[in-house]
Amino acid sequence: MNNPIKVGVLGARGRMGSEAVRAVGEAPDTELVAAINREDPLTGLVDGGAQVAVDLTHPDAVLDNIRFCVEHGIHVVVGTSGLGTPELDRVRGWLADRPEVGVLVAPNFAIGAVLSMRFAELAAKFFESVEIVELHHPKKADAPSGTAARTAQVVAQARAAAGLGAVPDATTKELDGARGADVDGVRVHSVRMTGLVAHQEVLFGTEGETLTIRHDSYDRRSFMPGVLLSIREVGSRPGLTVGLDALLGI
Amino acid sequence: MNNPIKVGVLGARGRMGSEAVRAVGEAPDTELVAAINREDPLTGLVDGGAQVAVDLTHPDAVLDNIRFCVEHGIHVVVGTSGLGTPELDRVRGWLADRPEVGVLVAPNFAIGAVLSMRFAELAAKFFESVEIVELHHPKKADAPSGTAARTAQVVAQARAAAGLGAVPDATTKELDGARGADVDGVRVHSVRMTGLVAHQEVLFGTEGETLTIRHDSYDRRSFMPGVLLSIREVGSRPGLTVGLDALLGI
Amino acid sequence: MNNPIKVGVLGARGRMGSEAVRAVGEAPDTELVAAINREDPLTGLVDGGAQVAVDLTHPDAVLDNIRFCVEHGIHVVVGTSGLGTPELDRVRGWLADRPEVGVLVAPNFAIGAVLSMRFAELAAKFFESVEIVELHHPKKADAPSGTAARTAQVVAQARAAAGLGAVPDATTKELDGARGADVDGVRVHSVRMTGLVAHQEVLFGTEGETLTIRHDSYDRRSFMPGVLLSIREVGSRPGLTVGLDALLGI
Amino acid sequence: MNNPIKVGVLGARGRMGSEAVRAVGEAPDTELVAAINREDPLTGLVDGGAQVAVDLTHPDAVLDNIRFCVEHGIHVVVGTSGLGTPELDRVRGWLADRPEVGVLVAPNFAIGAVLSMRFAELAAKFFESVEIVELHHPKKADAPSGTAARTAQVVAQARAAAGLGAVPDATTKELDGARGADVDGVRVHSVRMTGLVAHQEVLFGTEGETLTIRHDSYDRRSFMPGVLLSIREVGSRPGLTVGLDALLGI
Repeated sequence: MNNPIKVGVLGARGRMGSEAVRAVGEAPDTELVAAINREDPLTGLVDGGAQVAVDLTHPDAVLDNIRFCVEHGIHVVVGTSGLGTPELDRVRGWLADRPEVGVLVAPNFAIGAVLSMRFAELAAKFFESVEIVELHHPKKADAPSGTAARTAQVVAQARAAAGLGAVPDATTKELDGARGADVDGVRVHSVRMTGLVAHQEVLFGTEGETLTIRHDSYDRRSFMPGVLLSIREVGSRPGLTVGLDALLGI
Repeated sequence: MNNPIKVGVLGARGRMGSEAVRAVGEAPDTELVAAINREDPLTGLVDGGAQVAVDLTHPDAVLDNIRFCVEHGIHVVVGTSGLGTPELDRVRGWLADRPEVGVLVAPNFAIGAVLSMRFAELAAKFFESVEIVELHHPKKADAPSGTAARTAQVVAQARAAAGLGAVPDATTKELDGARGADVDGVRVHSVRMTGLVAHQEVLFGTEGETLTIRHDSYDRRSFMPGVLLSIREVGSRPGLTVGLDALLGI
Repeated sequence: MNNPIKVGVLGARGRMGSEAVRAVGEAPDTELVAAINREDPLTGLVDGGAQVAVDLTHPDAVLDNIRFCVEHGIHVVVGTSGLGTPELDRVRGWLADRPEVGVLVAPNFAIGAVLSMRFAELAAKFFESVEIVELHHPKKADAPSGTAARTAQVVAQARAAAGLGAVPDATTKELDGARGADVDGVRVHSVRMTGLVAHQEVLFGTEGETLTIRHDSYDRRSFMPGVLLSIREVGSRPGLTVGLDALLGI
Repeated sequence: MNNPIKVGVLGARGRMGSEAVRAVGEAPDTELVAAINREDPLTGLVDGGAQVAVDLTHPDAVLDNIRFCVEHGIHVVVGTSGLGTPELDRVRGWLADRPEVGVLVAPNFAIGAVLSMRFAELAAKFFESVEIVELHHPKKADAPSGTAARTAQVVAQARAAAGLGAVPDATTKELDGARGADVDGVRVHSVRMTGLVAHQEVLFGTEGETLTIRHDSYDRRSFMPGVLLSIREVGSRPGLTVGLDALLGI
């Protein structure tokens, strides 16, 4: 067996960070060598011999953290949000000087969610009908969820690319809102319910059969398998990678 | 074992009627003694010795059929639509003269659908949240379905009777229609999809748990168990009964 | 509005007890007046003026607790397991002297689970086929779950009472175990899966339609609505009541 | 728009064949030019100018049909079962002389079923747990279904290739059969129920999340989209292709 990968966690006391500390400590092929908080110097990564850093901090700290890691030859897995095109361009600039280093930026670490979206994209062209039902806790402010909206968009693009027309719908008498929101021609329905966490169904239909891809996320530990997968893969992917999709090989 | 119940079917060549002819012929405790079509005289029921008639004809024929049966002491199961309050009052009038005869009018013979609605009504007061998702083939003209709208209404009434307030919903940013149609405060979502037939889910949620009651109807044979149940029960229910609910004993 | 019900929690520091403390404190119609732990005297209930006590302690403490409460005219909701027929008989004996006091013993406070079982019992006689699929986390030792086994039993009894025969099954070539466990003639399937908590589906089928009753339990907070319901109801139910079913009014 | 593809159907009066005749007639990009039954000469294909033949006949006729088509430069889509390795080798031999002709042999035309299996294979390596629940009408003789058994096998192979060990399962007290059938380490559960047709769920679980891939087949028309896809694609795939998978491009 190979030596475990030496990992440092940035933002180790945060909600996500503390889960990452636990997950890295428990996995047989990773070893926690540094747990860095806001007040700690980044040199703790170097002192611990970290090969991979996981950044779960804040938008205002993440860029400095990435720069430090790249300059010190440490691969980085970034779960912190807030990296737009200009920020990603700066990261690319730093990587140009250190072409052997890998930086992986993942907006969503839930493997099931990422797979769902990819499968939906692949299935889209084979089905006349498609709709999305997403279900969340009632404290959520936006409807539909960002994931559902993005899923609808990639499905709509795949349908267009395959030359499919509008989905069939003979509704002539509709109570306002019954048919859901229209996202690029794909109907999306948002359920809000006490007891639920985060769930999504993509339903496809054609003559005599339906295909349903459902993802259920029960708590934030659902991100940890994706974090571990990223830690294992980032070292063999020099340069900048955006999205967990790239690691799924599908 | 008792003698089988002698049954006549009115509208025997229609879509529903032909299924009823088959079902009555196959069930061990019923016997088909008359299959009457538009051009046949109703006296065929008497000649065959029918104890129960099943009316699956048209709104313009059903009242005359019921009157004939009541006058001849034949119990009637009515699946034909179009009986409003004035028509039901006329039926009650005829029954006043023949108090031993039973007439059962059922807008929906699918036992699963009727049970779903009743269970939803009973569960309503125990859950903070409730929503309905109904799914049908894409040729359906109305959204939501009549069954979903009625289910929402009985759920809303049960909530009100128990003193429950509005369902929790923190949505502040909604793409038009995402949160479904509002039926008496209950959100209803309508999916239309090739391949589907008629399906409904009532979802209830409270802290840490959800309860889902789902009904799937695959074809019109789904009405036959309800028709047979009605045939078996109508004889012991003199007078007018509206709705299959009364037979379920719940 | 009525005055809130004054509640004491026994076992207040335990996993369930601490949730009950929180729930009683948050509900508008209940007030926490005593949080009793193993080392605290039961007189704290009296001092606080508790009208209802909730026992979430241990099998070796529960009987003494109940006795104290009954003797002091305090209604009791019991969530602690371990009360068999002899213990319940002793409780009945104490209640004989205090007929105005109510004791409610609930093996399962999850309202959704109790409703599921009751609905399954009520639906059973209307469907030719029935099977149960229960799904739990992979650390569970027994398969099927106790709830699934009990559900199968009440469904089997309801079928027998209605004169239904065996469920149809033409299987002639079975890989060992594919058709599940046989509980009184009802097939039960147990799924064990990382990520899941506690879930159960009862599936009913007849010609052309199916009815599915699904319960999902996500965490132990799912017991709190049932605890609160019990607190509200126990005062108006003098004597011994076993099972949450009695409170559902179904 | 291109000219429609000229199609001949062999076995045109059979259950599948008559559906294919209808589907080819209705699709905008295919044209029915020959409907051949057992008693008709195969030269009807040539006379009609068929570019593609669809064989939905019998195991004892299919080889002669394929040979005739290949020799006459007509592409063939084969839905008839009964082609084992020796038969496929003979087809390859005929194709060696006509390298421009395509023959596509598809054991399952339901696109949703084929996609389900492929998605399950792709998802397998990312999840600690996996189980399969398949649900069919009660007249089915074998349990589990052939599709479920094959799905379990491809999932098991994908897990092995990724180095995953056994799925976690702490069951120590099992009622016989509760945990399903063991197919290469993957548990498979078979539900048999009146009202159902053919359904399958593949459930995957990892920490805090699950992914479910469900396929519902309601009637044999569900094969027609796969037949049409095959007709459209076979012309651009010279030589022998086995399985619809190859056409999905996934």
